Amino acid sequence: MQNELDDLLTVLRFPSVSTDKTHDNDVRACADWLARKLQSLKLNVQIHETPGHPVVVARNEHRADRRTVLIYGHYDVQPPDPLGEWKSPPFEPAIRDGRIFCRGATDNKGQFMAHLRGIEQTLAEDGDLPVNLIFLIEGEEEIGSPHLRPFLEKHRDALRCDVVAISDTGMVARGVGTFTYGIRGIACMEVKVKGPSIDLHSGIFGGAVANPATMAARLAATLHDDQGRVAVAGFYDDVLPIQDWEREAWNALGDSTPETLQLTGAPALFGEPGFHERERRWARPTAEINGIGGGYQGPGSKTVIPREAMMKLSFRLVPAQNPDSILDLAEAHLRRHTPPGVTLEITRGHTGPSYVMDPHSPAGKAAQRALKQTFGGHVALIREGGSIPIVQAFKEVLGVDTLLLGLALPDSQLHAPNENFVIQCYHDGVRLNRALLKELAG
Amino acid sequence: MQNELDDLLTVLRFPSVSTDKTHDNDVRACADWLARKLQSLKLNVQIHETPGHPVVVARNEHRADRRTVLIYGHYDVQPPDPLGEWKSPPFEPAIRDGRIFCRGATDNKGQFMAHLRGIEQTLAEDGDLPVNLIFLIEGEEEIGSPHLRPFLEKHRDALRCDVVAISDTGMVARGVGTFTYGIRGIACMEVKVKGPSIDLHSGIFGGAVANPATMAARLAATLHDDQGRVAVAGFYDDVLPIQDWEREAWNALGDSTPETLQLTGAPALFGEPGFHERERRWARPTAEINGIGGGYQGPGSKTVIPREAMMKLSFRLVPAQNPDSILDLAEAHLRRHTPPGVTLEITRGHTGPSYVMDPHSPAGKAAQRALKQTFGGHVALIREGGSIPIVQAFKEVLGVDTLLLGLALPDSQLHAPNENFVIQCYHDGVRLNRALLKELAG
Repeated sequence: MQNELDDLLTVLRFPSVSTDKTHDNDVRACADWLARKLQSLKLNVQIHETPGHPVVVARNEHRADRRTVLIYGHYDVQPPDPLGEWKSPPFEPAIRDGRIFCRGATDNKGQFMAHLRGIEQTLAEDGDLPVNLIFLIEGEEEIGSPHLRPFLEKHRDALRCDVVAISDTGMVARGVGTFTYGIRGIACMEVKVKGPSIDLHSGIFGGAVANPATMAARLAATLHDDQGRVAVAGFYDDVLPIQDWEREAWNALGDSTPETLQLTGAPALFGEPGFHERERRWARPTAEINGIGGGYQGPGSKTVIPREAMMKLSFRLVPAQNPDSILDLAEAHLRRHTPPGVTLEITRGHTGPSYVMDPHSPAGKAAQRALKQTFGGHVALIREGGSIPIVQAFKEVLGVDTLLLGLALPDSQLHAPNENFVIQCYHDGVRLNRALLKELAG
Repeated sequence: MQNELDDLLTVLRFPSVSTDKTHDNDVRACADWLARKLQSLKLNVQIHETPGHPVVVARNEHRADRRTVLIYGHYDVQPPDPLGEWKSPPFEPAIRDGRIFCRGATDNKGQFMAHLRGIEQTLAEDGDLPVNLIFLIEGEEEIGSPHLRPFLEKHRDALRCDVVAISDTGMVARGVGTFTYGIRGIACMEVKVKGPSIDLHSGIFGGAVANPATMAARLAATLHDDQGRVAVAGFYDDVLPIQDWEREAWNALGDSTPETLQLTGAPALFGEPGFHERERRWARPTAEINGIGGGYQGPGSKTVIPREAMMKLSFRLVPAQNPDSILDLAEAHLRRHTPPGVTLEITRGHTGPSYVMDPHSPAGKAAQRALKQTFGGHVALIREGGSIPIVQAFKEVLGVDTLLLGLALPDSQLHAPNENFVIQCYHDGVRLNRALLKELAG
């Protein structure tokens, strides 16, 4: 008999980094493996090509008298760098202290593979599932799912369902069933700050021309005020306030400050005045510099004025901010604040709006029952800071809500070196899948 | 018979990058080759070890009735990156349009090799030189010559001389003999801006912690005011004003703005208000960001809050600023302006004071006669923006002035991709060496 974790370990070994073209073959190989695995469960499987990475869709035989549940996952992962900080190679899953360490262990391979295993178990025991299943696994989540919305639109009829379920969010603590009813959106942008046509000797020319590294820094510094508020004009105009019931539910979880300090290792917390730590992450928008670079960054010194510098920006968005409008405001801000002696080249990246659903809806209640069966105790009702743009697409294209039933722990190191998935969370995820399909069957 | 350029091309092929430890063997091999070459001229040659890269010293037989001239050069070079912008490989000299393209072609291999060739010719024709020669070639100029001052101190007696001559500066234009009587100093510093203990997901944690990339930019932005003045308190306190005769000599060279715009390819000039373009480069101090980096700079996007960001800073200094005092002021400024939520780690780099000599001294006049014999016409009297810290050491340790008789052209691309040396400048340099030694012999 195969080991319970074998399939997960196999999937983790694919370095399916969607943002890096040199990994295109690995992404493809991962999709192929998943399709073969799902076929082995006697599901109906198709690999759908897109202009980017393929979408794998598996379904059982649908019957008109059953509810239809779409389970979503993504088999692509974030780049593994900085490589030097991994304790074991990023694409060789290593088990230590009850955790699997690997890029993608939690985000998202461990989580969707728990659903796959739950389905496998139910099919083995019952010969069928209690619902019509559509299991959709895409390969472009980490680059903003650019081709999934067109895919949903094209296959709108075949993908018609009553609800979507996704495990790609977090639990407030180990063993505490957590239902996420809202997530932030995102809007990305890359900015090149261009000056001289060549790198210049900073002795010979220093003082006579604008230095793009300096000017990129000056421009970046205009994005916030001294206290951490985003200083882009109009940025907060459409932000909906936090509801009283939400504030109460979140306060009931206790003060998150010590945990966030511990998880981040930051010397102090810092954020928008007037909001609690959790509110800043779950319900307030941000502007972040995800990357900045220009000039010589190697060992020693090189006295150069670089010909250009760059910044990668992302904005996390909350209801009811519009991603495109935010990028419009940001671009206007950047152009208005362009320092003298340089020019800007702005490239817009991926976007996705924020999302909220009513956790007291019938599907929301079914999800909470499944969580209670799996984990016992009180189910936490939360929002989250990360972005799953696809959730908004499910709402807009298929007209359905998404149940976010995450299995990530606060110290899973998503997007960071030494990403890991607690093996117990995998087993809980298998049980959650089985309870959820039963509860949603009604 | 060997080609006139063969030795220069051989020296250029050594990738003698002093700042990069992986090139230590190449630096050494270059020193060894030079020692063998100088030995073949029947000069007395020693390779002096230092804690870093070696110093090569060659001398003829000294006679008490002759003046002693120390010719200085450096065989180390700047790193070649960004590699992708070279039209031919940086360490394979390529001849195009009467120029040799190679890292180090002008800075400084082409220039000291012209002196070496001049000496070789004089020895071949006359059997002796008109002066006592000390030919000193070091391997650490591009990292601030950290071991040359101790070397001068240790060998003070053996290196006693009447004057130093260096070709490591520029000509105001091709064919115009140029005497540089002043250079700027330098003080370098690296700053790490540290926040979380690990890279964080900017969705999950964005808004709750200070982003080191953002904070590095905010800190960098405090270094200047909006108009380009350095905003470090006390920075200009010790700066000596430009003399009237200097301003007149420089204005006589014509407006440098069009040439600087053309050479740099910058969309506009930008610098300290109240000073001409040339004054800003030659006689006013600067603060430059030579490198800034943090977070993801690769293709695509990675929504990360980096755990740290870095800046490499250098300050160009003018009489009578003290490099260590400037670093004290800069460090105090950076610590005072450290944004919330991050900590700083400051590492001081190499320093060298500025230098001025009297161009109307006997040695200065001899140098100008040699320039006039070599190039004809009017000799330009200038200062320069770059730094040659060793010049101040010659003054302080050996008590002598340095004649700066550069052969670099404004478009030699020093420190930049496609560095090049005009072959005619090499031939001029050979003649200049011969005229100079005669004139200095008196």
